[in-house]
Amino acid sequence: MSQLAERIVSGDARAAARAMRDVDDRIPGYLDLLKEIFPSTGRATVVGVTGNPGAGKSTLTDRLIDAYRKQGKKVGVICVDPTSPYSGGAILGDRIRMTRHASDAGVFIRSVATRGHLGGLSRSARDMVRVLDAYGCDVVIVETVGVGQDELEVTRTAHSTLVVMAPGLGDEVQAIKAGILETADVFAVNKADRDGADSTVRDLELMVALGSEALVASGKRRGHVVHGGVKVDVVPTAEDAGAKGEIWMPPILKCVATRGEGIQELVAALDRHAAWLSGTTTGRARRHLRLAEEVRESLRETLIDAATSALASELDDAVAQVEARALDPYTATERLLEAFRRR
Amino acid sequence: MSQLAERIVSGDARAAARAMRDVDDRIPGYLDLLKEIFPSTGRATVVGVTGNPGAGKSTLTDRLIDAYRKQGKKVGVICVDPTSPYSGGAILGDRIRMTRHASDAGVFIRSVATRGHLGGLSRSARDMVRVLDAYGCDVVIVETVGVGQDELEVTRTAHSTLVVMAPGLGDEVQAIKAGILETADVFAVNKADRDGADSTVRDLELMVALGSEALVASGKRRGHVVHGGVKVDVVPTAEDAGAKGEIWMPPILKCVATRGEGIQELVAALDRHAAWLSGTTTGRARRHLRLAEEVRESLRETLIDAATSALASELDDAVAQVEARALDPYTATERLLEAFRRR
Repeated sequence: MSQLAERIVSGDARAAARAMRDVDDRIPGYLDLLKEIFPSTGRATVVGVTGNPGAGKSTLTDRLIDAYRKQGKKVGVICVDPTSPYSGGAILGDRIRMTRHASDAGVFIRSVATRGHLGGLSRSARDMVRVLDAYGCDVVIVETVGVGQDELEVTRTAHSTLVVMAPGLGDEVQAIKAGILETADVFAVNKADRDGADSTVRDLELMVALGSEALVASGKRRGHVVHGGVKVDVVPTAEDAGAKGEIWMPPILKCVATRGEGIQELVAALDRHAAWLSGTTTGRARRHLRLAEEVRESLRETLIDAATSALASELDDAVAQVEARALDPYTATERLLEAFRRR
Repeated sequence: MSQLAERIVSGDARAAARAMRDVDDRIPGYLDLLKEIFPSTGRATVVGVTGNPGAGKSTLTDRLIDAYRKQGKKVGVICVDPTSPYSGGAILGDRIRMTRHASDAGVFIRSVATRGHLGGLSRSARDMVRVLDAYGCDVVIVETVGVGQDELEVTRTAHSTLVVMAPGLGDEVQAIKAGILETADVFAVNKADRDGADSTVRDLELMVALGSEALVASGKRRGHVVHGGVKVDVVPTAEDAGAKGEIWMPPILKCVATRGEGIQELVAALDRHAAWLSGTTTGRARRHLRLAEEVRESLRETLIDAATSALASELDDAVAQVEARALDPYTATERLLEAFRRR
């Protein structure tokens, strides 16, 4: 094991900070480091926090850090911030509030920004989670700023995803991406002291019911429900399966993060979800599928990198031929693929 | 050439409709069809229309169809609609307005929805544009419903991208994705009879100026500007290059689509942009780069498909080993890549 890997595993914060930077920037050698620390990972619970801008995610994350710290847990936070330079200001302001944890050796906060290429953001986040895991964090919170496609993929790096909503942000539940609803393991209706909180809760209850019960309730004896992006077979009825604890129904909890209200209940719900993941067949199946997704995604990215560097000159030739209409792009692609495999 | 390809090229609308469906659903044989029609493509001008929901894109597209029809042009429209089933209703309503063109044989409108996999939406859109091009459309309009990452990639299939904004949609210019601003070739400030239109225009002017002039104005003798996602070297000053017509400054035009005001000016600006693309070194370089991007993207997708089907059982084994922590995911990926290349 390299010295850096050893220092991370022994809990050296400066080594972890350096490794996070190397991993985020993909400095040569970062893969060797990740390989070395991998056997020391797998103990941390990874919690994703996502939701529309303005829902109060940063304040809530701040409170979650407090709650986990009171349990004596070491906490890592990765803020995923795929925003433009134009809107960076306000978000940085939110982030600054979290610096009050900066003097606490049991809290480690890092930001990760957008990568230029597809899938890069969730890969960076996942690798950074591994560093924090090896470093000894008991809980790693991955907080996303927005709710776009990128952020949706980032939430898949988490074991449990908390979706934060707030009343009064417009037609909240209707407007949120369907993918986010499917990804939610726990819903927090924040700013619950505001008008409209109960109606947001009711809308969410309806959504959850539609998503998970409609299929079986419609008279099918067998069906499936989608939880956390994983299709689960329901045999013979949802009620039976639910009774066995195999189906996770995302709880919907109200809170007021600014006053610290409802935070204990959220942490308890996340703990229950973690127990469901490890204690049920469906939960374990979900963890397996998430890992399979990771390996597939990693293979995709590695393939592309390898092919692009192996085929640089052939690619240029192919483009020139397509431009001259001497070759169509579909045949060009097939030839490039063959050239790559023959090397 | 197959009968279907021949019928498309001879302007048979039913053949084009069937081919669009086959291409969108990737029915086996669709690639052969695309190869056959490719030599008959390259004549259509492809215009992307994008912008925030509520900016009036559909109404504007409707007016653009009218304007191009008055010029005697055959028009194709592809509506890219990556929305959830939850919000589909309102958008369908917008679309229905366009059906008034349904009885016009010179207008061909099709919708394309989200694909489950990365990059799939822009690939479908691009292939459908090719069908409409071979079918004889002079102009193909690709309209996106939203402004997310998917839609951003779709705009790259267009020669010229029109970004539609409207005053009174909140902090419009600040909120829009930076990527959209860089992708814009022409800006339309729609609903220009409303309060705040002039301020939206001024904000956009500032953005455009910041994006394209700041670098050289800051005292650098050499720099670059980003236009349509393509980096252009500026030597020695932006003013000189601008005088030679090499730099495209996105014009900002006001319009009121519901009353048909300002549409002629938009069409004229799009025509000027098409002339710039074919008549300048920078314009031609951009077309070349876009084509190179397409071939790369196509190679990526083909690689992934080929590897996933070739490695199905190895992938399962690798995941099981990673899950047992007998293997790290990074080494697993490297081994899978080698296995794929050795076949």
